[in-house]
Amino acid sequence: MFSVVNPMRRSVFFLSDHTGITAETLGRSLLTQFEGIEFQQTSWPFLDNMEKAESAVSRINRAAREDGCRPLVFSTIVDTEVRKVILTCRGAVFDFFDAFNDKLENELGQPALHATGRSHGIGDFQRYASRIDALNFSLSNDDGLMASNYPASDIILLGVSRSGKTPTCLYLALQYGVLAANYPLTEDDLKAGLLPKVLAPYRDRLFGLTIDPDRLHRIRTERYPDSRYSQLRQCQFEVDAVESLYRREAVPFVNTTSMSIEEIAATIMQRAGIQRRLYG
Amino acid sequence: MFSVVNPMRRSVFFLSDHTGITAETLGRSLLTQFEGIEFQQTSWPFLDNMEKAESAVSRINRAAREDGCRPLVFSTIVDTEVRKVILTCRGAVFDFFDAFNDKLENELGQPALHATGRSHGIGDFQRYASRIDALNFSLSNDDGLMASNYPASDIILLGVSRSGKTPTCLYLALQYGVLAANYPLTEDDLKAGLLPKVLAPYRDRLFGLTIDPDRLHRIRTERYPDSRYSQLRQCQFEVDAVESLYRREAVPFVNTTSMSIEEIAATIMQRAGIQRRLYG
Repeated sequence: MFSVVNPMRRSVFFLSDHTGITAETLGRSLLTQFEGIEFQQTSWPFLDNMEKAESAVSRINRAAREDGCRPLVFSTIVDTEVRKVILTCRGAVFDFFDAFNDKLENELGQPALHATGRSHGIGDFQRYASRIDALNFSLSNDDGLMASNYPASDIILLGVSRSGKTPTCLYLALQYGVLAANYPLTEDDLKAGLLPKVLAPYRDRLFGLTIDPDRLHRIRTERYPDSRYSQLRQCQFEVDAVESLYRREAVPFVNTTSMSIEEIAATIMQRAGIQRRLYG
Repeated sequence: MFSVVNPMRRSVFFLSDHTGITAETLGRSLLTQFEGIEFQQTSWPFLDNMEKAESAVSRINRAAREDGCRPLVFSTIVDTEVRKVILTCRGAVFDFFDAFNDKLENELGQPALHATGRSHGIGDFQRYASRIDALNFSLSNDDGLMASNYPASDIILLGVSRSGKTPTCLYLALQYGVLAANYPLTEDDLKAGLLPKVLAPYRDRLFGLTIDPDRLHRIRTERYPDSRYSQLRQCQFEVDAVESLYRREAVPFVNTTSMSIEEIAATIMQRAGIQRRLYG
């Protein structure tokens, strides 16, 4: 028995013999180009033997039966035998290595290893350590608690409370290995209208965040409703003051209101011309 | 004038009209399948108009001249006109949308939007907020400071100091929107050999991390050389004790020694059967 076909709903499977991060990135990036369809997503990581492959095929075929249309299957599986099993499923398979591997082997004049788990693996110890160091750096510097670490920083983010400094610093560390510190501009700093003295030696590595007052008001209200801190009027004052400060002191800045953490981080990397310490 | 061709060194460009994260993830994932070649990587995000496309082509062609062989170009550019310009370069272009888009349009029965910046964008406010909430949750819970938040957690990670709890919690928040708390097992806990009472109500959401004593010794020594804390003997005691505790209390655990943060997080998601709150 088949259920009614609903073309506005499609099952999507992300298959990977490892973490699944590449498969998800690939598939999601393609799917964002299509609107009005509800994608029912299932991620299947560590799919690294024939038994698991057969389970996945059964699961995909069941979705095909229930949906009455072909599931979309994004696969980054490397192992040749496991891939063959997956290709027998009743889904439309988008096989990442199949798409690019021949061309890449030709270009590089050597066969691919077809080895599992090389992407998003630990790499060498030094690379791993530098990433963790960057993360710890940004945690220990959070909210300007460790100004003594500013000399070692690659970048120091400024902004009012809840403008996105902490998530951005953490992402800069994880994705790029960048040593990101931050300084939260207080009401006193804003009233003075000048850069705090502690920042003066580091003018060339300052980068400001700003945000629309309405959005800031909404974010702060979720945390501290009915506080002076979250009032729209207070948010407006702080945002006006911080933007004036950035302009007066020639600190480059970006408005984070409609940006994701990834977008804020990539924008800062480019505009501040920061050297990354690692590739994702 | 051409420089000497060195086939063990290739220039690689990641081109994107947005953050570049998808282009880097895909390209790096393919490149990890080839060994013995030094890849000189350059990321070019926000490449979203003809002028920038022409600059990129010049830069790629210069690399081709200097290297004496074709650079590898991984592109996730969506705009048709910009893509046409990139295709004129003297590199081997791996065009991500070109590879999959026709098939996907056919499957879904509608044309792709060809709109820039839809991947890694902010999405809806609620999705963004839940990710930031998860991040803040994991920051506020760091090192067991807020046991009062345990009831709301999706998972509570256990482990000795420097076994990877904090980075894993942050990554679980960023990538999956999961509310991850952690509890650092102290020497007293280890000597008692029992689960701390504060954790008793949450047995079903505990997950342990362990690590090889040599590696732990190395990590701790980088931070605190010549301390009792970093001595190999102390590391051995703690690791032995924590693994005994996990076994005695039937807490599932994973050895993080040779795993990246992504791998640890994906492993925990799967083994603990956690429902993700968002797709990266």
